[in-house]
Amino acid sequence: MTITITAFERSPDRGRGLARDMRVRWALEEVDQHYDVRLLSFPAMKEPAHRALHPFGQIPTYEDGDIALFESGAIVLHIAERQAGLLPVGANARARAIAWMFAALATVEPPIVERSMAVLLERDKPWYEARLPVLEDRVRVRLGELSLQLGDADWLDHAFSAGDLMMVTVLRRLHGSGILEEYPNLSAYVARGEARPAYRRAFADQLAVFTAAQPPG
Amino acid sequence: MTITITAFERSPDRGRGLARDMRVRWALEEVDQHYDVRLLSFPAMKEPAHRALHPFGQIPTYEDGDIALFESGAIVLHIAERQAGLLPVGANARARAIAWMFAALATVEPPIVERSMAVLLERDKPWYEARLPVLEDRVRVRLGELSLQLGDADWLDHAFSAGDLMMVTVLRRLHGSGILEEYPNLSAYVARGEARPAYRRAFADQLAVFTAAQPPG
Repeated sequence: MTITITAFERSPDRGRGLARDMRVRWALEEVDQHYDVRLLSFPAMKEPAHRALHPFGQIPTYEDGDIALFESGAIVLHIAERQAGLLPVGANARARAIAWMFAALATVEPPIVERSMAVLLERDKPWYEARLPVLEDRVRVRLGELSLQLGDADWLDHAFSAGDLMMVTVLRRLHGSGILEEYPNLSAYVARGEARPAYRRAFADQLAVFTAAQPPG
Repeated sequence: MTITITAFERSPDRGRGLARDMRVRWALEEVDQHYDVRLLSFPAMKEPAHRALHPFGQIPTYEDGDIALFESGAIVLHIAERQAGLLPVGANARARAIAWMFAALATVEPPIVERSMAVLLERDKPWYEARLPVLEDRVRVRLGELSLQLGDADWLDHAFSAGDLMMVTVLRRLHGSGILEEYPNLSAYVARGEARPAYRRAFADQLAVFTAAQPPG
C-alpha cells in the first residue's frame, strides 16, 4: 500500500518548510516510511475532489488504502500510533507526548499565527504599529512558559516525540521575527529539531518541490 | 482511583460553560466516569504547584493515579481511548473522529477566539470597527465549510464522537455573536450537543460552581 500526501504545488512560504505538509513529511521520515506526494494548485485545493478529502480545502491530506485523513496533527498522531519512533512506549509518557502535540497546536501556535497574519495582511493599516507589540507580547507569554518548561533539556519530555516534532514546526514560524532568539534554549531546541536527519530529508524534499516549480531564468 | 480535574474558582464566563473544563466534564459524563474537581483562583493557577501540572498555568488539568495531563484536547482523547462511548471502534472511523478533534482546535477555534479577543480587548480601540468585520468573515469561511460538511447529518461523521464534543464546545463560543445563526444546520448541531444528558449534567455542575462563588445578595 502506498501512502500519498498532498502539498502545495507552489508553497507561499517559498520552500522554507513552513507549510503544514512539512510536519507530515518529517513524521514519515522519522519512521522511515516511503510516501508519494500529490501537488495541488490553489484552485485545485478548493475543488470538490479535494474538499472530499479535506473539508476546509487545505493541505496536507493523507491517504493509505481505504483511510483518508486531514489535519496535520491528526495525521502525525496516526503515523505515530502505527509505527515506532514518535511516541514513547509507556502509557503515561505516551499520553504526555500527545498533550504536547495539542499544546503546540492549541496553545502555542495561535498567537504565533495571529502575529504572522498581522504582518502579512495588516502592515499597511493605520493600527499596525500599535497592534504588533501587543501581539508579540502574547507570543512572548507562551514562549517564556515554554522556555521554563524546557530548561536545559534536549526535548520537552525526555526522548524526542511527536510532541517535539509539532512544537518545533510551530516555533519555526517565528523565524525572521527576532522573538525566538530572546529565548536561547528555545532557539537551540528548534536547531536541534532541524538537525535531525529525518527533518533534513523532509526539508530537502519540500524545497525541491518549490525549486522545480520556479520558471527557469 | 479518583480522577481529579481543575477548573476556575470563578469562571470569567460566568457559568456559561465556555471554560475549557466543560469539555472534560462533558467527556467524563459521556463515559459515566465520576470525578472530583479542584477549584483554582487566578493567582493559584500561576503558582509553581499548578505550573508543575500545567506549564502554561491554565485549566483544566487531569490527574488519575500516577498520570497528570494538561490541554483539554489531550485529556478528552485520553478519556476517549480508555473508555467506550467517545470514539468509534473501527480503526478508520476512529482516526477520522480524532481528525475532527484536531480540526475543532486547530482550524475552527482560532478565528473564533481571535474574534472573541478583539471584542473583549479592542472594543475601545480606534480600529475596532474596521477590524471586526474582517475577523467575522474569517469565522464565516470556516463555518461555511463546516456547514457544507455537516449537511443534514446529526453529527460530523456518523455517530456522535469526541470530534463532535470538541466542535460543539468550539462553536458555542459564538453564542451572542449572531454568526452561528447564519448557519441553521450548525445551530441545530450545537443544540443537539447541548441536549445530550451528559452535556446537561456537565453544564449544571460547572454552573453550580459559579453560582456558589457569588456573594449572597
